[in-house]
Amino acid sequence: MRGKLIGVGTGPGDPELLTLKAVRAIERADVVAYFAKQGNSSNARAIVADLLGGKVEEQLGYPVTTEIDRRHDDYKSATNGFYEEAAARVAAHLDDGRTVAVLSEGDPLFYGSYMHIHVRLANRYDTEVIPGITAMSGCWSQAGMPLVQGDDILSVLPGTLEENDLTTRLSGSDGAVIMKVGRNLPKIRRAIDAAGLLDRAIYVERGTMANGHHMRLIDKADDVAPYFAIVLVPGWSTRP
Amino acid sequence: MRGKLIGVGTGPGDPELLTLKAVRAIERADVVAYFAKQGNSSNARAIVADLLGGKVEEQLGYPVTTEIDRRHDDYKSATNGFYEEAAARVAAHLDDGRTVAVLSEGDPLFYGSYMHIHVRLANRYDTEVIPGITAMSGCWSQAGMPLVQGDDILSVLPGTLEENDLTTRLSGSDGAVIMKVGRNLPKIRRAIDAAGLLDRAIYVERGTMANGHHMRLIDKADDVAPYFAIVLVPGWSTRP
Repeated sequence: MRGKLIGVGTGPGDPELLTLKAVRAIERADVVAYFAKQGNSSNARAIVADLLGGKVEEQLGYPVTTEIDRRHDDYKSATNGFYEEAAARVAAHLDDGRTVAVLSEGDPLFYGSYMHIHVRLANRYDTEVIPGITAMSGCWSQAGMPLVQGDDILSVLPGTLEENDLTTRLSGSDGAVIMKVGRNLPKIRRAIDAAGLLDRAIYVERGTMANGHHMRLIDKADDVAPYFAIVLVPGWSTRP
Repeated sequence: MRGKLIGVGTGPGDPELLTLKAVRAIERADVVAYFAKQGNSSNARAIVADLLGGKVEEQLGYPVTTEIDRRHDDYKSATNGFYEEAAARVAAHLDDGRTVAVLSEGDPLFYGSYMHIHVRLANRYDTEVIPGITAMSGCWSQAGMPLVQGDDILSVLPGTLEENDLTTRLSGSDGAVIMKVGRNLPKIRRAIDAAGLLDRAIYVERGTMANGHHMRLIDKADDVAPYFAIVLVPGWSTRP
């Protein structure tokens, strides 16, 4: 009997935002696997730490690739080799009949690291994906900000986009979520301003975590923003 | 002492996809409120039915407005009057010191009915919003389909959009979610085909519910599709 692969969304940070299904899957799993940068601890593991007991853990440590340009073929082959090896380590447990829960912060199939395992193994093993609360959902809930309603169009955009492209896409959407803020913050602010949306935009840092906070983007200085900060532009312009 | 308003996301349908936080909030609430069409039962209530015990329930029954054109002022004033009255009924409990959990299928601030209560009461009462698994997340998880990765752009689009607009937006995105399918299905299919994405698109009905299923859009007949069916177009074109 081969084991089952389960992609488990751990939500955005607050352990209370785990689903009942995620908790049960972790408790029943023979092995819990998760990605982490080498030498660092895993955020996803921290969220479920209280459920792990003496369970077998499989840490899939990212190689250090910061010195290689992301657009370069060496980066792609280094990361591809890493994901192949990570999938092989998970597959070895499955072949031995162990159920493996692969943790993913947020939702596994929405910008999640689990996807790299899924595309390599889901066609060969019995597989289940348990959705999780996304980081963006955690952020607008913490900010208490209605995001989109009715026939609104929502765009989820990376902060790495070129400034004019960002402005055009913001102007053509009702609501927007901008991810990967970090050093892109000044550019994101200019793009939102050019779209005439600066007074509506909200900056959120570490949504649903203990030290999470939010403020109007207009009040946030251009100094330091973490990579995982999010900017929200609410839609629902007809709200009463 | 005034009571606390809690917007509670119940997720897409499977009671196991409630978060621990949602379960505790419902168990601790004095009153559980939910929207439903008059004469119908509430989907959100059905998801949490096992948690309600003998709790006080407040059903907020939508008025029958199907005979009034949605674009007509009469529709807007009828629905506005209804939301005002619903908010007043919730506020009466809060004024009496009762904590009220207002249920919302999916995520409360993401196309959720709770938003109509939130904008009327959150500025006057202590308020908390507990995010939920969105319907779209339930759908791509059930389909086991990686949606977006890395710097992908995601568009969430209503199926009510005009055909050419749909095609343009699909062509300019990496991944897309099309909601409110129903009778828009033939148009949505044509728009996706024109964008060259028909072989990637997936049709999902009742994601995460007992009778949920999915298939390639190309294999789905143009006959009957429920309003809440969803079409997914996966991004991550560089996947290995």
